[in-house]
Amino acid sequence: MNEAAITLDGWYVLHDLRTMDWASWKLISKEERQAAVDEFLAFLEKLQQADDNKTGSHAFYTVVGQKADFMLMTLRPTMDELQELETEFNKLTIADYTIPAYSYVSVVELSNYLAGESDEDPYQNPYVRGRLYPELPRNQYICFYPMDKKREGNDNWYMLDMDKRKELMRSHGMIGRGYAGKVKQIISGSVGFDDFEWGVTLFSDDVLQFKKLVYEMRFDEVSARYGVFGSFFVGTLLDEEKRKSFFTI
Amino acid sequence: MNEAAITLDGWYVLHDLRTMDWASWKLISKEERQAAVDEFLAFLEKLQQADDNKTGSHAFYTVVGQKADFMLMTLRPTMDELQELETEFNKLTIADYTIPAYSYVSVVELSNYLAGESDEDPYQNPYVRGRLYPELPRNQYICFYPMDKKREGNDNWYMLDMDKRKELMRSHGMIGRGYAGKVKQIISGSVGFDDFEWGVTLFSDDVLQFKKLVYEMRFDEVSARYGVFGSFFVGTLLDEEKRKSFFTI
Amino acid sequence: MNEAAITLDGWYVLHDLRTMDWASWKLISKEERQAAVDEFLAFLEKLQQADDNKTGSHAFYTVVGQKADFMLMTLRPTMDELQELETEFNKLTIADYTIPAYSYVSVVELSNYLAGESDEDPYQNPYVRGRLYPELPRNQYICFYPMDKKREGNDNWYMLDMDKRKELMRSHGMIGRGYAGKVKQIISGSVGFDDFEWGVTLFSDDVLQFKKLVYEMRFDEVSARYGVFGSFFVGTLLDEEKRKSFFTI
Amino acid sequence: MNEAAITLDGWYVLHDLRTMDWASWKLISKEERQAAVDEFLAFLEKLQQADDNKTGSHAFYTVVGQKADFMLMTLRPTMDELQELETEFNKLTIADYTIPAYSYVSVVELSNYLAGESDEDPYQNPYVRGRLYPELPRNQYICFYPMDKKREGNDNWYMLDMDKRKELMRSHGMIGRGYAGKVKQIISGSVGFDDFEWGVTLFSDDVLQFKKLVYEMRFDEVSARYGVFGSFFVGTLLDEEKRKSFFTI
Amino acid sequence: MNEAAITLDGWYVLHDLRTMDWASWKLISKEERQAAVDEFLAFLEKLQQADDNKTGSHAFYTVVGQKADFMLMTLRPTMDELQELETEFNKLTIADYTIPAYSYVSVVELSNYLAGESDEDPYQNPYVRGRLYPELPRNQYICFYPMDKKREGNDNWYMLDMDKRKELMRSHGMIGRGYAGKVKQIISGSVGFDDFEWGVTLFSDDVLQFKKLVYEMRFDEVSARYGVFGSFFVGTLLDEEKRKSFFTI
Repeated sequence: MNEAAITLDGWYVLHDLRTMDWASWKLISKEERQAAVDEFLAFLEKLQQADDNKTGSHAFYTVVGQKADFMLMTLRPTMDELQELETEFNKLTIADYTIPAYSYVSVVELSNYLAGESDEDPYQNPYVRGRLYPELPRNQYICFYPMDKKREGNDNWYMLDMDKRKELMRSHGMIGRGYAGKVKQIISGSVGFDDFEWGVTLFSDDVLQFKKLVYEMRFDEVSARYGVFGSFFVGTLLDEEKRKSFFTI
Repeated sequence: MNEAAITLDGWYVLHDLRTMDWASWKLISKEERQAAVDEFLAFLEKLQQADDNKTGSHAFYTVVGQKADFMLMTLRPTMDELQELETEFNKLTIADYTIPAYSYVSVVELSNYLAGESDEDPYQNPYVRGRLYPELPRNQYICFYPMDKKREGNDNWYMLDMDKRKELMRSHGMIGRGYAGKVKQIISGSVGFDDFEWGVTLFSDDVLQFKKLVYEMRFDEVSARYGVFGSFFVGTLLDEEKRKSFFTI
Repeated sequence: MNEAAITLDGWYVLHDLRTMDWASWKLISKEERQAAVDEFLAFLEKLQQADDNKTGSHAFYTVVGQKADFMLMTLRPTMDELQELETEFNKLTIADYTIPAYSYVSVVELSNYLAGESDEDPYQNPYVRGRLYPELPRNQYICFYPMDKKREGNDNWYMLDMDKRKELMRSHGMIGRGYAGKVKQIISGSVGFDDFEWGVTLFSDDVLQFKKLVYEMRFDEVSARYGVFGSFFVGTLLDEEKRKSFFTI
Repeated sequence: MNEAAITLDGWYVLHDLRTMDWASWKLISKEERQAAVDEFLAFLEKLQQADDNKTGSHAFYTVVGQKADFMLMTLRPTMDELQELETEFNKLTIADYTIPAYSYVSVVELSNYLAGESDEDPYQNPYVRGRLYPELPRNQYICFYPMDKKREGNDNWYMLDMDKRKELMRSHGMIGRGYAGKVKQIISGSVGFDDFEWGVTLFSDDVLQFKKLVYEMRFDEVSARYGVFGSFFVGTLLDEEKRKSFFTI
Repeated sequence: MNEAAITLDGWYVLHDLRTMDWASWKLISKEERQAAVDEFLAFLEKLQQADDNKTGSHAFYTVVGQKADFMLMTLRPTMDELQELETEFNKLTIADYTIPAYSYVSVVELSNYLAGESDEDPYQNPYVRGRLYPELPRNQYICFYPMDKKREGNDNWYMLDMDKRKELMRSHGMIGRGYAGKVKQIISGSVGFDDFEWGVTLFSDDVLQFKKLVYEMRFDEVSARYGVFGSFFVGTLLDEEKRKSFFTI
């Protein structure tokens, strides 16, 4: 048996993607729509308070194309809070005019592949804490996709020994580092929580950087031989101004 | 031909996962909702009586994310009782406000891979009986996933001889034992009953242990080379207090 | 080119699985439901007359779990009769309260793998006729699943020569024979008719025998290397008494 | 790079499979149903005129099982005419009582694998023209399925050289010839038009011949190693008499 | 690690495919339909103005078969504009009578596989600009499909070195050049944006050329060993005249 990777785990994450049922949304009166939007904006405001208090974080973006209309990403210290926020959203009026499109349950994760040796408790390290309990940025674009490491024939990540995996991940990490300042990346683990092993969430002010980063990585052995990718979702920031016009008919 | 594994089989199991049709649920009056919830709570109370009488067992949890809103897991001595409970649920008023999300039919199973030699009738062994006819715990979290053993090219579990399978399962079992006291695991067999070969149900008061357990096992050859996994469902306990607020608009 | 297996073909088979739309079913009055059930029971009675006259056969079972609520399996001498019965069912009132869940089109089949040499016309052999034109039993449980023989890389059933296939099927058949008296098995071929190559329908008074039989076979090379399985459906007999209560709200 | 097969291409083909929404169909009055059927029969009559004028051809059959209720197959000299007929059907009243079940876009195709050398323009050869612009028969049964040639590891049809492909196709064609007079076969190419590479449509007065033909071919290397099959649809002729009763409640 | 391909990236692309809900569309009055069509035609006219101003481009075609009824392809300098146009379409009345069928998010892409060495800024080269910011043609037919390069066992495009990939792409490009003047091809990259790695959009006045081109390429190693294809969509031009009759009942 192989040496398993050790992870540090931070906040729990729910990606909740919804499609607007525009036809139903148009059927109700302007006043009803306004009330539903106001209620939803108050819910988003409450989420923002958690961001402000550093007791959680959230991001709210459109999704381009028919896969969904918007994505609400929420981070909290417990799975219970995520469940409660999800149910709270479902009880909002606006939820009745949305159709579930996709969701993903995970927990912010750092692996030990790139860690050095230390006696320190990493959960006390401010840099580590900043990554485990991240303040989600307000960049103009978001990209989310789930992924697995392959276990097929000779391409079986989990049968590689720890040293080989470390070496491969180091090379892989070098590519990511080349995008520092251009793309912010949050890796969340979902083994035992959802259908893929990880969720990857990227933020950038230049949407093309998502393509450049993922494509460059694809030529690296970690992705080329071992990467299995789910659906990709890309969207634009719904800041306070845009979220009003988005829902206005 | 290879030596087939021998199993001990206990109670039959139905995992019944449902999504709330929240929009319809909100359309009816508060009184109608209350009546529907009361009827459902009485049904759950009846299930609890079987637990109390040790003539069956059940668990009732939310499911986080869009895959479902809640999971009702029921164990009974016969397949007929599961079918009757399922139909009884479908005839409840609350069922009209749910959408089938996923279900799984299986039977609690112990394999002979880890068994010693004995002349004893295992079905009379109190420890074995406790595992075949388990009292489902009331831990804060549940995790359920179905799985297969792979049969592809050189990675064909069913072409391995019994000794090799025993050896691999022993190493695999060692990982599970490391989580004793932290995670309670129920394996149910579904060959001939449902689309995967096994269902795995985990209970814990620390949801992170699900991820740690499943991830550590993934580096073990049994999972790394031979594990094929279906969807993962994770949720939180709907105890008597929470189940009322869950359905309240 | 390889020697193709020769088959004997009997009655055509339609497995028709339906989910009840319980919410709509409850919306109509008790009298309307009664009239719909009576009409359906008369249809089932007509099917039974074909059984009595040995001009066909049928079976009517629940399906446990969300895959379907009931399965109606019909055998007739011609494909045309199956089509007519299917359309006749669709024109019944009760059909409006069902949702198509799955169906399978096939023909009862015996292969020559286990046949001896003979000058006799097998279609005149009473034993063979009993298997090609079977009277479906009224056991307590049914199990249905479609399957293929694999054609992947080195595991390609159709590239094996006839002698190898015969040898493998003989060993496979030995397992089946071990369940004689416990499980009745009907194999129907569906190459050219439906998406898998065969349908397997099992009947038993002990539902656990389905699991034991299919699991034991899985360790046999025919299944281990060459078996590709679709969905498994398991259910309980809806005899005249139970079919009334099943539809009663 | 390999020598690509050269094809002769005839009429464009649309297979349009629909499921009846029987519950809605029953909700309207007998007179409304009659008017809808009459309008549809007039549409079919217009299709028949194209058959009579040899400016196209069509076939109209039931589909057995839940995959669809009927299949309308239309052949025309241009893709534009297929699109117009599809839209014309959608604008008929009866279309509102159907649910799209499956469709396939292709063009009747003859490959050069079995062609001899010749200076002749094949498009002027009456035999070739009869096959490229076929009059669809009125046999009692139809079978339709889409298929690909495999490109996996060592089983890659498109990496075989032309001589090897010719040799394999010759053997494959021999099987087909054994069914001459029993099964009429129309191959249509769909590379660039739809999700598989070919559609195969079979006609026969003995439905069992579909199974015999496809099963015998499966043991031939072309299918055994290189065949990838989509869904199979089988049905019965809806001649003028049967199409009336089919739609009558 | 391998040398990643370098790309030039132009306008962002949204392929938006919709199915008409014909039954609902017929339910409203002729006047309501006319108003909805007029509003939609004004939207299309606005898109045309961007074409005229060379600030974007669009194409509007039917889709043959049940996969969709029409495809609206839009190109813009930013992802934000695509998102806004999509939402604007969703707010049109006609959108309420359509059902999302498929969409694809990408960016027009040129790869360096076929580029020579140069010090020039390619983004200033008029030929390159014409390809990165293309004026979509008004040919009679369109074909769209997404695709990946395979990463399976020995057929792993991303593990090939740059020279091998260049050599293979050169041969592949030769086939494309053979269709110059017959087929216009637009390649758009979607790594990080959507579920496949590229979208391919073809335009031609001879629909058969799509089949000939894609089939010929399939025998080339790039497609034969490394091509993974999604769904194919083919359709006919909805010019100003046809788009009116298309929506008229």
